[in-house]
Amino acid sequence: MKETLTIVKVGGAVVEDEAQLARLLKDFAVIEGHKILVHGGGRRATKVAGALGIESRMVDGRRITDAKMLEVVTMVYGGLVNKSLVARLQACGINALGLTGADMNAVESHKRPLKNGIDFGFVGDVDHVNGYALQLLLQQGITPVMAPLTHDGQGNILNTNADTMASEVAKALSRFFNVTLIYCFEKPGVLRNPADEASLIPIITREEFSGYVADGTVSGGMIPKLENALAAVDHGVSKVIITLATAIDGKHGTVIQRRK
Amino acid sequence: MKETLTIVKVGGAVVEDEAQLARLLKDFAVIEGHKILVHGGGRRATKVAGALGIESRMVDGRRITDAKMLEVVTMVYGGLVNKSLVARLQACGINALGLTGADMNAVESHKRPLKNGIDFGFVGDVDHVNGYALQLLLQQGITPVMAPLTHDGQGNILNTNADTMASEVAKALSRFFNVTLIYCFEKPGVLRNPADEASLIPIITREEFSGYVADGTVSGGMIPKLENALAAVDHGVSKVIITLATAIDGKHGTVIQRRK
Repeated sequence: MKETLTIVKVGGAVVEDEAQLARLLKDFAVIEGHKILVHGGGRRATKVAGALGIESRMVDGRRITDAKMLEVVTMVYGGLVNKSLVARLQACGINALGLTGADMNAVESHKRPLKNGIDFGFVGDVDHVNGYALQLLLQQGITPVMAPLTHDGQGNILNTNADTMASEVAKALSRFFNVTLIYCFEKPGVLRNPADEASLIPIITREEFSGYVADGTVSGGMIPKLENALAAVDHGVSKVIITLATAIDGKHGTVIQRRK
Repeated sequence: MKETLTIVKVGGAVVEDEAQLARLLKDFAVIEGHKILVHGGGRRATKVAGALGIESRMVDGRRITDAKMLEVVTMVYGGLVNKSLVARLQACGINALGLTGADMNAVESHKRPLKNGIDFGFVGDVDHVNGYALQLLLQQGITPVMAPLTHDGQGNILNTNADTMASEVAKALSRFFNVTLIYCFEKPGVLRNPADEASLIPIITREEFSGYVADGTVSGGMIPKLENALAAVDHGVSKVIITLATAIDGKHGTVIQRRK
């Protein structure tokens, strides 16, 4: 029987909201078993870039990362946000260790080639997660806090989407652990009726997903999110949960799993 | 017989000079045995603070760190400088791991009280170095890259002088290793005649130090630097070397040791 590992991914909006963040850290601290926190920080990066006179340009919700913006995200994700989370988790009794993909060669990536003529700049698509090194840390009672930055092995930091970082880490660690991947979301989970929070769908399998797409229950940005979650469970992750940042106890939200 | 550990402290001036930095990283990568890099980043912090409209105020060469400046140094030391060094060392085949004192509770400190009526703000004086955790990393073939930031255990990051950080880490690790602490300096070492680089003093012991102070060979800012080095060798560090950033092979510079 594998030990449990819970990976929580929290976005920039929660990181910037002190009340939500304090609650999240408290709830994260009491999760039993091994755990990893993966964070974003896009809102803060946009603010710091703005203060430095650097414009944030987004395409399909993804940040164009030129050399100046790479410095900003390296400062904000790797420094400001990451170290603040680490210090606060230490104060909760959690032996946190902040990591980018460069640290211990945790996550290697390559610079994304032009895509439909769009140059995303210093953005990294993940090639390899060093699951062995991460599990060694976990076995020593350490809780990794991962910033959405990777490296190319040639000395360059690359900006990587935090959702992708979380699912790639989850997949790689499913060799060693029984992994639950929790995505903090702005709604209680996947809703049949977006206006009605009581219409939460508790479980979604791949079969059901196809049905929900066909009948329009699931649409727009939710489709790639769920496809990403289903890909994770297809690659060994036990379950993916989409839930509010205030409800990461594993008992709330929509659970995406292989079968019922 | 203890294994060897070399701790190299490099300041912000070298970190900002691409030619010197590239040379230093190459030389650091080939040092045999265990090693740790401790870095500064003050010049970059001053630049970033300036670009954000935040004034850098120094007293006796030490930075006054208010809440805004703490964010800047957390970004610059913990993120920009640290992660860039880590990625570049990985490219040299060194399994680097960036750390602040908050990570793995590596270095705990307390906020400095008012000193001669001066409030240094969020500056931390070191209380404890987690030597056990650091030596575990070293035994796993990991090379820590340490930013001059500590934490108070209450959730707060504090700004800590990089020279102090290096000597405290060196002292704590002398329980486990035969430690050489190398300070990169703007001159080849301690000179009898500041204008003559050939007047280098190869070895200084505590006895000789007193003589050099008495006869004026050593004066000004060199006195506290050497006192700090002598305190390190009194607390178990085998030797401290003061040398150029381009000469960290252990064969150059002034060696401070207990006796000849």
